[in-house]
Amino acid sequence: MLRPDNGQRNELANALRALAMDAVQQANSGHPGAPMGMAEMAVALWTRHLRHNPADPQWWDRDRFVLSNGHASMLLYALLHLTGYDLPIEQLQRFRQRGSLTPGHPEVDHTPGVETTTGPLGQGLTNAVGMALAEKLLADEFNRPGHTVVDHRTWVFLGDGCLMEGISQEAISLAGVWKLAKLTALYDDNGISIDGAVPSWFADDTAGRFAACGWNVVGPVDGHDVAALDEALREARASSDRPTLVICRTTIGKGSPARAGTAKSHGEPLGKEEIAATRAALGWPAAPFEVPADIAAAWNARAAGADAQGAWRAGWEAYRSAFPAEAAELERRMSGQLPRDFEGDLQGWIAEAQLKADTVASRKASQKSIARLAPALPELLGGSADLTGSNLTDWPGCGAVRGGESGGRHINYGVREFGMAAIMNGIALHGGFIPFGGTFMTFSDYSRNAIRMAALMNRRVIHVLTHDSIGLGEDGPTHQPVEHAASLRLIPNLDVWRPCDEAETLVAWGSAVTQPRRPSALLLSRQNLPAQTRTPEQTAAIWRGGYVLSDRPQPRAAILATGSEVGLAMAAQALLDARGLPVRVVSMPSTSVFDRQERAWRDAVLPRDLPSVAVEAGVSKLWASYGCTAVLGIDRYGESAPGPELMKAFGFTPEHLAELVAGEVGSEPQIERSSN
Amino acid sequence: MLRPDNGQRNELANALRALAMDAVQQANSGHPGAPMGMAEMAVALWTRHLRHNPADPQWWDRDRFVLSNGHASMLLYALLHLTGYDLPIEQLQRFRQRGSLTPGHPEVDHTPGVETTTGPLGQGLTNAVGMALAEKLLADEFNRPGHTVVDHRTWVFLGDGCLMEGISQEAISLAGVWKLAKLTALYDDNGISIDGAVPSWFADDTAGRFAACGWNVVGPVDGHDVAALDEALREARASSDRPTLVICRTTIGKGSPARAGTAKSHGEPLGKEEIAATRAALGWPAAPFEVPADIAAAWNARAAGADAQGAWRAGWEAYRSAFPAEAAELERRMSGQLPRDFEGDLQGWIAEAQLKADTVASRKASQKSIARLAPALPELLGGSADLTGSNLTDWPGCGAVRGGESGGRHINYGVREFGMAAIMNGIALHGGFIPFGGTFMTFSDYSRNAIRMAALMNRRVIHVLTHDSIGLGEDGPTHQPVEHAASLRLIPNLDVWRPCDEAETLVAWGSAVTQPRRPSALLLSRQNLPAQTRTPEQTAAIWRGGYVLSDRPQPRAAILATGSEVGLAMAAQALLDARGLPVRVVSMPSTSVFDRQERAWRDAVLPRDLPSVAVEAGVSKLWASYGCTAVLGIDRYGESAPGPELMKAFGFTPEHLAELVAGEVGSEPQIERSSN
Repeated sequence: MLRPDNGQRNELANALRALAMDAVQQANSGHPGAPMGMAEMAVALWTRHLRHNPADPQWWDRDRFVLSNGHASMLLYALLHLTGYDLPIEQLQRFRQRGSLTPGHPEVDHTPGVETTTGPLGQGLTNAVGMALAEKLLADEFNRPGHTVVDHRTWVFLGDGCLMEGISQEAISLAGVWKLAKLTALYDDNGISIDGAVPSWFADDTAGRFAACGWNVVGPVDGHDVAALDEALREARASSDRPTLVICRTTIGKGSPARAGTAKSHGEPLGKEEIAATRAALGWPAAPFEVPADIAAAWNARAAGADAQGAWRAGWEAYRSAFPAEAAELERRMSGQLPRDFEGDLQGWIAEAQLKADTVASRKASQKSIARLAPALPELLGGSADLTGSNLTDWPGCGAVRGGESGGRHINYGVREFGMAAIMNGIALHGGFIPFGGTFMTFSDYSRNAIRMAALMNRRVIHVLTHDSIGLGEDGPTHQPVEHAASLRLIPNLDVWRPCDEAETLVAWGSAVTQPRRPSALLLSRQNLPAQTRTPEQTAAIWRGGYVLSDRPQPRAAILATGSEVGLAMAAQALLDARGLPVRVVSMPSTSVFDRQERAWRDAVLPRDLPSVAVEAGVSKLWASYGCTAVLGIDRYGESAPGPELMKAFGFTPEHLAELVAGEVGSEPQIERSSN
Repeated sequence: MLRPDNGQRNELANALRALAMDAVQQANSGHPGAPMGMAEMAVALWTRHLRHNPADPQWWDRDRFVLSNGHASMLLYALLHLTGYDLPIEQLQRFRQRGSLTPGHPEVDHTPGVETTTGPLGQGLTNAVGMALAEKLLADEFNRPGHTVVDHRTWVFLGDGCLMEGISQEAISLAGVWKLAKLTALYDDNGISIDGAVPSWFADDTAGRFAACGWNVVGPVDGHDVAALDEALREARASSDRPTLVICRTTIGKGSPARAGTAKSHGEPLGKEEIAATRAALGWPAAPFEVPADIAAAWNARAAGADAQGAWRAGWEAYRSAFPAEAAELERRMSGQLPRDFEGDLQGWIAEAQLKADTVASRKASQKSIARLAPALPELLGGSADLTGSNLTDWPGCGAVRGGESGGRHINYGVREFGMAAIMNGIALHGGFIPFGGTFMTFSDYSRNAIRMAALMNRRVIHVLTHDSIGLGEDGPTHQPVEHAASLRLIPNLDVWRPCDEAETLVAWGSAVTQPRRPSALLLSRQNLPAQTRTPEQTAAIWRGGYVLSDRPQPRAAILATGSEVGLAMAAQALLDARGLPVRVVSMPSTSVFDRQERAWRDAVLPRDLPSVAVEAGVSKLWASYGCTAVLGIDRYGESAPGPELMKAFGFTPEHLAELVAGEVGSEPQIERSSN
């Protein structure tokens, strides 16, 4: 069946080209240029190096393939279809149509074989760094002499756009430090981006840049020469201590007589005439969406995949016999299931924290939570963007993951918030870990799109965002989040928590680790916060996201507070008590979670006919959606000054809040209604 | 008065060290390590190379100095104080206190001599690239043979943190492409970041990395040897075609016997004992906040500054005589004033667009607006993050700013959204230009903190954010903004516009360019939008941010719509007319601007007793703050499909909206109330 290599390889590549240009044409939308340009790169990798089994995309020791230039999605769909994944040709014919398995950009969990959702440039590469790190850490932890059950590679295709994005620097710098030798990036060096020929805006010596970051650089090689690419990938696999960049010189839209090498091939269909011309130039006779049987057979990787996985499984069974506990633990870890005892332990810790009632900053409460969770959850993998001592993300005995050290569980990401977030996404996508990472809350701006991507991809990633208001004090407005809590709450599928004390912080952590399909952001104070008193029912109600923390008979108003302002609300309640105005205090650590409660719960906590005032040291606009008619918030930037002084200057005092509530009730408090 | 160089220079440096450690101690907050480590770098630059006049911080041909590692603010305050800026010692004594001129991080417009607000790492360097580009472009445009009236340098201090941040790669790559020879960065290579010694997380060969990006790299030099630094800066000034990086090997906290070279010196006071030990080790006898008179005199740069500015002014007067029109124009440009005729022209264009009533996408309406504005406003400097043909940011005859080309007015930023935004901030800070730049709206996530910084710094920067909803179609959820409009609206001092047709788009542009102290974001559709009919009064009301676009006698509800959903609202109004339910349509192109209107206007547009329904293809939560009791929005991620199909699938149809409004009115429409 196999023809001589050269002819065969060209036809294998041309099958990808044809499917890509035909699908884009049929959709009348999409990007033909990159798939056509990367076709031989794909042939070399997918037919000679990639270790995978199309029949079992969940085989966890498979190689990972990441298409960082996600607009080239048709390349990936063509590969998945041809190699035998459950992606029939009808799906390719429905490229970019509603409900198809072939959306405009690859989406993980949506299409079998897609490892991560890509499109926002630079993040795929960074996800891949996270995947490769996860592999390395799992291998270190679970492999035993003679038993290398964790042993796979991570391969990335990327383009000029990924390399222009700054996040790529964060990714390659860390991949170099971590010596991720099993990571290989293939650079589609086609010299064209949307605005045209790149040297006028992208003149980096990319080989020099990667070499400067500790990478093994191979090439440039002819990106249309499968044999040369194959050799380059062999060189990559031979690297024992450095990640490898293979620079592949390609022609965008290769095969199209009129559009090859032009920006015009990038993001629009070639058109029927040009497609016909391309078919002729390639000598590709098959009709649209048809692949000659011999080519299809040559592409099919099901047999090879079954062999590969079978060989691995034999090793796995041997491992399981020799190390049953480790095997069971590794399977648990890769499944994403928490240990059986965990939830019970968690409830105990929460009750204990509630009982002890320590006054601590919520960032400190978070560290205490981590110190409890981490021994119980070996999958917890922490880190910080160079603010470990401020974010308090480390814990006793956590060790470090960094250059030259292994065995640790806390990653020193350096000052790289966006990279950290996208690497965490990669770690979560790989499996085996629950990653969390810290930075100052303001700098969630830097990582925002990666936080969004975790939410879009339904991945359990935890962002520890400390210094959560002007209360941080002297560092001033550049470091003081104002709009950030509200902005993060708007990201669909992200759970945002702003706990007020240690019990709420533990619940926030508990919620974050027990929800496998959702990221969480924990907004934590720099300053100390008093512990609140709760009945067991109230402690349980924290899990509802919003609950009545302190009530009065026949309350005339509610104060809705979060995080560091809950103590303030309690103090205002006391002042109003003295004035004969009974008010309820609602603690709302998570609007995200509260919003998911049944209507009866929400209405019971915040009755529609009860005037309510929100208090949070941040922008005020969101609170109207909870029925609040007044808000004590901050709709401007902060200032540099000691935190307590600022809080006072911005009106965050019990007296001011009490006045506001009294004013909202609309009349002088009626002493006769006071009942306590 | 001047002592021999070595002794003198050490004492000059020690004056900085002492002021920094004393001020941090007094504040009991701040960062002594970096100022102490960079003291000699500051001496070399500020006493031998920096061309400035402390008596006139607004002299526009001054050199720009940017402290990219802004936490080293006390270094800058000490320099400004010692060289003779209007920053008395009392202000240094009030470091980090409320209302002082010495906030925790440097703030432009707040402290004389501070060129940009820094603290968020990597952005200062990127601002500096923008400043250097602005200088180069202005020099190209205005200098004449024998008259180099624009001729200044941009100097940056930066640390490891700036280089770890990905944005630094975007900045250095563009600086290399643009051959910004007058830009010099001094790298405080102290090997320490907050988590400790950097090689475990930052092992880049920084010299190699910068060289790969087309920089002239000098050093490493001994960062405590003023003569060596001076020589390095001479080398930097000799570079005619490349920006220069001077690698300065320093010791963080230099001078402190116990803390020098440790992370502990970074972010907390040294403590009284260690300060005493440091004084002894440095041989610095003066009391806190006292500077010996000879040292103070040696630092004072008022005379030198007056000379420098005087020499420049003589040249300027000669230029003014020879080229009066150019001189007047340059002065106007640097003042930020628009041409006298501009506002009248603008009103004419708006009226004309209103009259012509073209159906175009708002991104196209934006391009038409730019084509009108740009000839009238030579200070407009456009660009795109490699999406020129999609963002439609270019205009006829705009030319290009890119490697190897000059004279153009449209910058090809490459795929670097964050870099673009921070470079635009630098351009605006420099003066002489109104920068605008385009990307897809979703990727405003990448640039978000720089958008915030423009708002915090009160700078006129315009973000052209196209493809503003699921309406963009097939590219799918990674590219479809959902939470972004609402999130941007939460950033204080940012004007967000989402216009519905060409007239509104022109007003949005007009508002953006005529407000000198505020950035704007224009959210624009990919898809075509119908023009709306308006009376002259309604057209004028667009400037209010929200207004009644179409009313009915005794309306029973209001529909509040923005951008691409305004047409939908009008269609729903017609359906409801037919059902005998009169409703008002409110167009709300800018909540930011509407929020600034007097209460009477707001209440007239959206009367409190009129039920109202908002419609916008984005998250719904913000609309409750406008009194809306129902929202047709999107509180989940989008999908990949043709735009019109998606809009329908997500419920954005006149029928659905009409149902929602009818339901909100709470009863069947009463036919007898229909009055048209």
